Amino acid sequence: MGGDFAPSEIVAGARQAVDELGIPVVLVGPPERLGADHGLEVLPASEVIEMDDDPGPSVRRKKDASLLRAAEAVRDGRALAMVSAGNTGAAMASALLRMGRLRSVVRPAIATPIPQLGSHPAVLLDAGANAECSAPMLVQFAQMGAAYATARYGVAEPRVALLSIGEEKSKGTPLVKEVHALLAQTAGLRFAGNVEGRDLLSLPADVVVTDGFTGNVALKTLEGSLRFFMDTLLEVFAADEEAKRAAEVMLPRLAPLAAEFDPDGIGGAMLLGVDGVCVISHGSSRARAVVSAVRVAHDVAVGGLVGALGRAVAAG
Amino acid sequence: MGGDFAPSEIVAGARQAVDELGIPVVLVGPPERLGADHGLEVLPASEVIEMDDDPGPSVRRKKDASLLRAAEAVRDGRALAMVSAGNTGAAMASALLRMGRLRSVVRPAIATPIPQLGSHPAVLLDAGANAECSAPMLVQFAQMGAAYATARYGVAEPRVALLSIGEEKSKGTPLVKEVHALLAQTAGLRFAGNVEGRDLLSLPADVVVTDGFTGNVALKTLEGSLRFFMDTLLEVFAADEEAKRAAEVMLPRLAPLAAEFDPDGIGGAMLLGVDGVCVISHGSSRARAVVSAVRVAHDVAVGGLVGALGRAVAAG
Repeated sequence: MGGDFAPSEIVAGARQAVDELGIPVVLVGPPERLGADHGLEVLPASEVIEMDDDPGPSVRRKKDASLLRAAEAVRDGRALAMVSAGNTGAAMASALLRMGRLRSVVRPAIATPIPQLGSHPAVLLDAGANAECSAPMLVQFAQMGAAYATARYGVAEPRVALLSIGEEKSKGTPLVKEVHALLAQTAGLRFAGNVEGRDLLSLPADVVVTDGFTGNVALKTLEGSLRFFMDTLLEVFAADEEAKRAAEVMLPRLAPLAAEFDPDGIGGAMLLGVDGVCVISHGSSRARAVVSAVRVAHDVAVGGLVGALGRAVAAG
Repeated sequence: MGGDFAPSEIVAGARQAVDELGIPVVLVGPPERLGADHGLEVLPASEVIEMDDDPGPSVRRKKDASLLRAAEAVRDGRALAMVSAGNTGAAMASALLRMGRLRSVVRPAIATPIPQLGSHPAVLLDAGANAECSAPMLVQFAQMGAAYATARYGVAEPRVALLSIGEEKSKGTPLVKEVHALLAQTAGLRFAGNVEGRDLLSLPADVVVTDGFTGNVALKTLEGSLRFFMDTLLEVFAADEEAKRAAEVMLPRLAPLAAEFDPDGIGGAMLLGVDGVCVISHGSSRARAVVSAVRVAHDVAVGGLVGALGRAVAAG
């Protein structure tokens, strides 16, 4: 029921995931709003948490919300994973309340893929779950991010970097300097040192760790500037007849690049640190984004991500 | 003596500023390294703080450093303003030590222009002077940023926004929420609420306030993604003969855009809160960037920026 194009695009994506990937999908929501043409199993939920609802109060008040019911289905073993394109805070709260935290995890984090040209995406966390973080939280984010890069992209020994304002360990806030020292001595972690904002699209690492405030600002800055550039380019391409002809030459050559940066193909963000798989797709998800999210959710669940996260944090 | 192309490009830029703008420039540094062909007055300084020197120890140890001598020249009224393309931390420390802080200013901040298509640039501060900030510091950054937008871009009543991770005043760290509440009730300030990372290139404000850690990460993310996009585009433009012909049509149409985003034309960052004008140009400054920086330094100094900053902070 979540996202700008719910439920129609979400339902269409679920149907496509079944047809194309052979992954069984259960829809959660008010049956009358989901329709019946899709032919999928429906887990009824009478309430919906809207995009602009305040997450905390909503999950307490709307006991029969689709997000809570979806998280319960994972908790109860009726589903292997949940996928939502809805209210991020409410999806997080639902997963946390119903699935619970993994033992030893202080706070779950949102891990978001950042495209890297010619390679698998890197993982940035925390992308916004925790505006304020402690040093032990950030060390766990590093451990969980590494386990996720292995589960998701098959990286054997992921390199983990820390986002700061200079490469030297003396750069950054007192928190960042403390975390730098801790990561350098964390057993089993391949620490690659600090990276800066300008490195995010060509990272010398598979994982970037930061607090949820900085991570959210950096990701949205990245998204905003890429969108700005794309929009401006398309405007120039349509400026006059000569430009339009040149654009016909350029567009096919730019398509592979655009595909690598298309959020719909990337599969969404993952909430790491809860006792179950929870994928959060962007609010403007259409059917294709839902298919990607279902595929990723399925793959990491089957691959044993949750167990791997638990071991990674316990080992530290 | 600072920057990747010092002293030759810096000297050439100084000469151009004299010739093209009629602004008298004094060079500061070891006379034998500055040469004599430029025909400009030289203020001798026997030492140079290098780009990778640690700022604090350097300014204490190198008493005859060109940066310190330049700041002294401003303090003593021998120069109206200083311009450096060198070590940012050392330029800041030199200005702070020799010019002193403005009365009532808790900590100076670096204000950096962010291009806004079809309008004057917006000003982001702090761009990295203070990794950790208090609420009173951020309120002063708002006041100084507004005064600077007026002095630099002639904005009569600048709108000031706060960088956060959501538009609602409930979003962000405890510090950001506190600052939001304070800015909303600061007399004489036109507070425009929160903005997010994705808004930075199309801001509903003239000034964006943030701590120096977040500001530095956001700016470098912006720079990095624009550079990535430009580089990738140029690669596609050169991919084959057909692409090259199409590029010949596109490039002149993209040139005005590239000019708006060219850091060399923008004039550099400004250290606000010291008792004098100090412009910090980027490390890769060539002659043209120096000309822009000299022009900006001259214009705001003549326009009474320092007095305006003092009044803005005292009024709050």
